[in-house]
Amino acid sequence: MSTLRITGLEALDIRFPTSDHSDGSDAMHPDPDYSAAYVILRTNVDGLEGHGLTFTIGRGNELCVAAAKALAPLVVGRTLESIVRDFAGFWRSLASESQMRWLGPEKGVIHLTTAAIVNATWDLYAKSKHKPLWKLLVDMSPEELLATIDFRYLTDALTKDQALEILRANVPFKAAREREMLDRGYPAYTTSAGWLGYSDEKIRRLCREGIAEGWTHFKIKVGADLQDDLRRAAIVRQEIGPQRRMMFDANQRWDVGEAIANMRELARFDPWWIEEPTSPDDVLGHAAIARAIEPIGVATGEQCQNRVVFKQLLQADAIRFCQIDSCRLGGVNEVLAVMLLAKRFGVPVCPHAGGVGLCEYVNHLILVDYICISGSLDDRVAEYVSHLHEHFENPSVVRGGRYTAPLAPGYGITMKRASLETFAFPNGPVWSARRAAPLVRR
Amino acid sequence: MSTLRITGLEALDIRFPTSDHSDGSDAMHPDPDYSAAYVILRTNVDGLEGHGLTFTIGRGNELCVAAAKALAPLVVGRTLESIVRDFAGFWRSLASESQMRWLGPEKGVIHLTTAAIVNATWDLYAKSKHKPLWKLLVDMSPEELLATIDFRYLTDALTKDQALEILRANVPFKAAREREMLDRGYPAYTTSAGWLGYSDEKIRRLCREGIAEGWTHFKIKVGADLQDDLRRAAIVRQEIGPQRRMMFDANQRWDVGEAIANMRELARFDPWWIEEPTSPDDVLGHAAIARAIEPIGVATGEQCQNRVVFKQLLQADAIRFCQIDSCRLGGVNEVLAVMLLAKRFGVPVCPHAGGVGLCEYVNHLILVDYICISGSLDDRVAEYVSHLHEHFENPSVVRGGRYTAPLAPGYGITMKRASLETFAFPNGPVWSARRAAPLVRR
Repeated sequence: MSTLRITGLEALDIRFPTSDHSDGSDAMHPDPDYSAAYVILRTNVDGLEGHGLTFTIGRGNELCVAAAKALAPLVVGRTLESIVRDFAGFWRSLASESQMRWLGPEKGVIHLTTAAIVNATWDLYAKSKHKPLWKLLVDMSPEELLATIDFRYLTDALTKDQALEILRANVPFKAAREREMLDRGYPAYTTSAGWLGYSDEKIRRLCREGIAEGWTHFKIKVGADLQDDLRRAAIVRQEIGPQRRMMFDANQRWDVGEAIANMRELARFDPWWIEEPTSPDDVLGHAAIARAIEPIGVATGEQCQNRVVFKQLLQADAIRFCQIDSCRLGGVNEVLAVMLLAKRFGVPVCPHAGGVGLCEYVNHLILVDYICISGSLDDRVAEYVSHLHEHFENPSVVRGGRYTAPLAPGYGITMKRASLETFAFPNGPVWSARRAAPLVRR
Repeated sequence: MSTLRITGLEALDIRFPTSDHSDGSDAMHPDPDYSAAYVILRTNVDGLEGHGLTFTIGRGNELCVAAAKALAPLVVGRTLESIVRDFAGFWRSLASESQMRWLGPEKGVIHLTTAAIVNATWDLYAKSKHKPLWKLLVDMSPEELLATIDFRYLTDALTKDQALEILRANVPFKAAREREMLDRGYPAYTTSAGWLGYSDEKIRRLCREGIAEGWTHFKIKVGADLQDDLRRAAIVRQEIGPQRRMMFDANQRWDVGEAIANMRELARFDPWWIEEPTSPDDVLGHAAIARAIEPIGVATGEQCQNRVVFKQLLQADAIRFCQIDSCRLGGVNEVLAVMLLAKRFGVPVCPHAGGVGLCEYVNHLILVDYICISGSLDDRVAEYVSHLHEHFENPSVVRGGRYTAPLAPGYGITMKRASLETFAFPNGPVWSARRAAPLVRR
């Protein structure tokens, strides 16, 4: 590894025309074209590359591609050893570059792209060790794991010593939990049945199919129209029965007062959580909603920009479920920080997934959380959506409503060469055959 | 105006090599090259254009230029009348475009760029009415002003009715305040003396010059090293005497506990405020610091990403000074929302300025705040920095420590053609003559 050097960074604009069938549609994003700013780190070793992506929903994906090129000089030319020797320092060099940090800091385009590069670096690291990412992390000592995390802005809620204590307390149980995960996998839930653009008949059919596949938790989109939401919730509750769990996702559509009023109506269908009831930036708003709608839990995180906002959501007792996002946070290092924060506050991590590649990422993160940090499966389910897995060399596999442990080396995000070519924007065959989805003026 | 149509959007990458002399240097940004993603809206009327910019500090400015091109289809082709008829709706069409909002939402590159476009639209509107922007706004009725604001996510802290009440209560005083502003101008403070990269001798000299020019409030940068901060604070306090006010700016360098500990040391120099003591995202952290260091006030806002975070800073009693930024917020419409919020919570607005063009923008906003919203000059000072004004056709003018009211039509941001050409990146003469500042790996 001492001679393994990153020699180049390639950034690709990959888009899938998912809006054709309302896949992924919700109250704020009626027409997503699931997309990836896809990063390949080339090295001086034949056949060894690091792959990473950040997820977007179409227009503007080119901005993340451009940001990857802007950040490339911080990575290209470095040896992998120099990076992993001070992984927290490497992370900060990207997240807080002295001029580019103005564009965030640690949020938006620049931070989404930091995730793609950081995750590609971890993929390269894991591949160089011939291990799946989760196993690379699980095999690290508590001290090694800790050294990957930048604790800036966290110490009023979680010190290094407290984090180390959490990691050390889990060491005696790691081997048994690893076997358990390899045998049984990690619990998941499905969102595939509940996209906002789907007809009632399609929802009903997908619920039945989901039950047959072994799913026990079903999430549906709400927020555009209360009467529609009530009708759709009734259908799902009727189909899944009283024992299985139903979750709602409003995708930020409501103001605080609206969220409380609407959830009082929707409460009759016994939801387990309401996800993104309002602005992802509104810590105090989530806290007010959480207090008002107990015992329904508040969940958020897919657009929670960084560890500082997660810290506050936990400090304010604003969330009962912590939905880390593998690309919204600045890659593995920051995800570890948030999983440790959640453990300290006793809040379960239930990762956001779906999109393109998020399930592949999350598949690794949940194992690390269980084996090294949380040590519990209570009230923990990771999102699963059945789209676009066919484009990955080693797609995540779900059986009987549980993610199975991935075994291939790396972080699981390497896309098939044919997919990278077919869905390249704007000149791949899928896009050159059509005009880009016109920008909707509303 | 009914036939005035936006026919094109041009986005320029303009950078000034300010890092050559440490101008603008602080604890997190040691080497800024003050830059602008500069937007020109072309129209079907000869000689009539809307100009706007968003401010960055160098590398990555090209991402905002690219974002302006991505957002252009939302503006180009529209008549000005169709925009101003529903200005809040126009604002939301940019800030919440169904695919691009994923890249924020309402933060980072995409929101900084929204500001440039929105401000260019206001510039065009004001020029079409042959009025300076502040006068255009002051001449609007309360109802007209209100109709420019998107209240999404605000209603738990400020309803439309409450905002209307604030605006109406100020109507009887508008004419007298307008005359007062034209006669006397608006109080300002200077940051020009206190950049972190300046020597002690330079600071001393600049303090003396500042006093001679009539300044009564002086701000210095702190945060990199406590002993340095103590020495520099002593110099400034010695030079300005006990009556003039001194402010500190830590530019996000500290964790919450560090900020409290360091401010307890620095308190001996009687600072009026500490600005950006920690992460700009940390509402609860600012609140904890504010409680701990009373009677010193906490100030923040130049990297406060949007109205939702300002709302919470006010709800949590975390700031004593609200430092709106004319480009960080999504342009005039969102600035108006935050000024109304600040009024409702009784917190003075003390805008961030400096950079390039921010003083020119702020010069208009402070007059609107005083005349239409706050109605008070108590504890209110707008930042002024003496850099780069020479590049504007109608630069802001400060006399005796006060901003004078601008009289030229528009929003004051139109740059001289020669400056746009000379400082174009990377091919203008200033940049082609040197290599771009190398990206620092830290």
